[in-house]
Amino acid sequence: MTGLPAALDRELAALLGDGWLTDPGERFTYGYDNSRREAMPDAVALPRTTAQVQALVRACRRHRVPIVARGRGTNTTGAAVPVAGGVVVSFEHMDRILDIRPGDRCAVVEPGVLNGDLQAALVPHGLFWPPDPTSAGYSTVGGNFACNAGGPRAVKYGASRDNVLALTAVTGAGELIRCGSATTKGSTGYDLQRLLVGSEGTLALIVEATLRLVPAPVERRAIRALYRDVAAAAQAVARLMAQPMTPSMLEFMDHHAVRLARDVGGADLPPEAGALLMIEADGDAQTLPHAVEALMRAAGGDGLVSLDEAADDAARERLWAARKALSPALRTLAPGKINEDVVVPVSRIPDLVDGVQALSAESGLPIVCFGHAGNGNLHVNLMFDPADTSQLERAQAAMAQVFELAIRLGGTLSGEHGIGLAKRDFMPRAIDPATLALMRAIKAQFDPDGILNPGKLLPP
Amino acid sequence: MTGLPAALDRELAALLGDGWLTDPGERFTYGYDNSRREAMPDAVALPRTTAQVQALVRACRRHRVPIVARGRGTNTTGAAVPVAGGVVVSFEHMDRILDIRPGDRCAVVEPGVLNGDLQAALVPHGLFWPPDPTSAGYSTVGGNFACNAGGPRAVKYGASRDNVLALTAVTGAGELIRCGSATTKGSTGYDLQRLLVGSEGTLALIVEATLRLVPAPVERRAIRALYRDVAAAAQAVARLMAQPMTPSMLEFMDHHAVRLARDVGGADLPPEAGALLMIEADGDAQTLPHAVEALMRAAGGDGLVSLDEAADDAARERLWAARKALSPALRTLAPGKINEDVVVPVSRIPDLVDGVQALSAESGLPIVCFGHAGNGNLHVNLMFDPADTSQLERAQAAMAQVFELAIRLGGTLSGEHGIGLAKRDFMPRAIDPATLALMRAIKAQFDPDGILNPGKLLPP
Repeated sequence: MTGLPAALDRELAALLGDGWLTDPGERFTYGYDNSRREAMPDAVALPRTTAQVQALVRACRRHRVPIVARGRGTNTTGAAVPVAGGVVVSFEHMDRILDIRPGDRCAVVEPGVLNGDLQAALVPHGLFWPPDPTSAGYSTVGGNFACNAGGPRAVKYGASRDNVLALTAVTGAGELIRCGSATTKGSTGYDLQRLLVGSEGTLALIVEATLRLVPAPVERRAIRALYRDVAAAAQAVARLMAQPMTPSMLEFMDHHAVRLARDVGGADLPPEAGALLMIEADGDAQTLPHAVEALMRAAGGDGLVSLDEAADDAARERLWAARKALSPALRTLAPGKINEDVVVPVSRIPDLVDGVQALSAESGLPIVCFGHAGNGNLHVNLMFDPADTSQLERAQAAMAQVFELAIRLGGTLSGEHGIGLAKRDFMPRAIDPATLALMRAIKAQFDPDGILNPGKLLPP
Repeated sequence: MTGLPAALDRELAALLGDGWLTDPGERFTYGYDNSRREAMPDAVALPRTTAQVQALVRACRRHRVPIVARGRGTNTTGAAVPVAGGVVVSFEHMDRILDIRPGDRCAVVEPGVLNGDLQAALVPHGLFWPPDPTSAGYSTVGGNFACNAGGPRAVKYGASRDNVLALTAVTGAGELIRCGSATTKGSTGYDLQRLLVGSEGTLALIVEATLRLVPAPVERRAIRALYRDVAAAAQAVARLMAQPMTPSMLEFMDHHAVRLARDVGGADLPPEAGALLMIEADGDAQTLPHAVEALMRAAGGDGLVSLDEAADDAARERLWAARKALSPALRTLAPGKINEDVVVPVSRIPDLVDGVQALSAESGLPIVCFGHAGNGNLHVNLMFDPADTSQLERAQAAMAQVFELAIRLGGTLSGEHGIGLAKRDFMPRAIDPATLALMRAIKAQFDPDGILNPGKLLPP
């Protein structure tokens, strides 16, 4: 029934029992991700143990059959789509929280645990794991590591790679490797755990992770700052990041995003607002008022239209409403969207937004920018009608120019979504030939037969 | 005059001019490091440009001549000692600060800049680079990266690896690679820059580094907490690390260290003190009192003997005097010292200190522990008389057991000093065979002929 060698099918069916899916209807649901790409895997494996993962990889390697590791398929780049067929390995049954050690500020988990379930389990301990992608409620820790997921909190607490202590993984050679230790400092050989983060399942399958945890702040407060234009908002971002009170979130919306949130989303925003910052501070009852004061001082300055502090949680939710109104409102512009997450040095945000608007004018397609300003990580949303071939072509050409622009400004292709298929062919623009050749050579050491997620991250 | 092939000597003399040293008297001073090991290099290169470094590596590769990168030789593991001869490359002439960009919170430097000189240059911008090894005044940024140097501040701000954005380096193949970007988020291919940090010059020579900077706090305050015993102090460390106000330093001294600081160093410490914590908070005039209050609350508890806050800078210096009195006082115990920086999960500090004291009793040699408690990173100082062969043997055997103990407790060989020669042969105890084999395979991709710092970090 599957395209797999019969011997491999039999071997893995015996190994995995009801964790081996070959029915086309079942396989189908493991073939897509949030990039809206899809491809049919030859089979789906749902391992329950590390030993099963290792046996599975060794068996697939003997038959040179591709393996695509999968969390819950929320990534946006096609990294989880089995374009070369083979076996999708879903970690949905390896979803246990193995240990929470508050004194050591760490937790040990299997890769399939949902980010949101982990956070809920950490609440009684007064701790959290910093990565907070929008998908947190339904994306896995393993998937977060695969693409080095971030989120708004990364500006203060770092992304996935900044919050890993140790990883156990199975390489493409079927070897079990243990990288790092459950300590917050370490200088014992090469740092393989951070190398695995962001590698999109092309080097090894993570089977266990020791996470760096952070004490949860007692309270948060949000500030909404409106500016005349993007340049004024970007100046404020630079001021906010140059003073010692690092915000716990620092989100940006350009003038198109502000207009959409107001006119379509119904957000309460004055017409003279040409850019918006959502600034959040966290702390405790004693320190938070001072933190908010410091951030409001830095947010003020030339081009400020208004500055509002949320006095309580309800007010905070109202402030965030403008941002939340945005995604549904985008759909009124056009049915199709390319959303890429380029990153530039913070000081180059105005150049990025200006350049993007020039590309919008040139292509005749609306482009809306918003995102994590404190990291210079903007989500560039290019809107088009996919049924119109000319628009599709212009959209793709414009997005290629957005990548070129980000690189020219000293930034790079992705801040937190990764490369996958979507940006793979742009890698030679971002990474020079010698460095790319070294990445390939390293890949070959982890995965000598090239069976792990072939066709992703590294251009052919 | 040198042991180098004459053609290579001629080529590099022409390349480097007065930056090519072959006189034995000059070479000699580049052959040691703070491990007190030494070996004579065949020549010393003092390049001034990246192009010179690249040409030098290519020339040495053609002749299969070893290359040992060198900062200022402050490391403690022998990593900078040219045990296989060859060319020592000292970066003392590549010591420029190329750019400081406060809005982007980053600086671009050559590897030979002194950590202390960099910090001084950052003061007017209100920024600092977090790594603060004791050697900061006379160690280089390149050297700090080589061993992933940390220091007391790492508990809040991370070590070298946590504070790198991008590196440019020359591999052992003579290729120039550019890893990372000047952005605080990135998910564009494999993370080679963090792989280079801690690799002790065995993978590539760093020629340029883009550093993550942090806004400098306005003020600092220190608290000295004395406890009845190590267990009570360790409990306090766990409480301090579990609450949201992360200290900017959290230093520990065991009972031997306390006694030495008091009886020999003349520090003002009561006789009932069996362990000491130095706790520091940073912030501004508004938030700092609350931070100090939170830390003092967490420091209190069972076994507390006294809790003193330094009211001003002078008082802060007096509190630190106990720690500073320690190193000179150690010498009164014995003329020889092995100082290793094992790391364990914070909750295992009492087990580490107890185990170390058992080893001290067994070997009949004093062992004094102090260090960075917030990271579980203790400096274990084993004192002996090197002239006494039996003591030397017992000291070496006891230190081997300290390493075993740290690993058994879930920790590892080094928190911030690295491996070099000193711990190389213990690597197979800390790293399993498959992972070690992968490290070797990766090394071979960067350095196909094994010319970069041969004999270091990876056991033969």
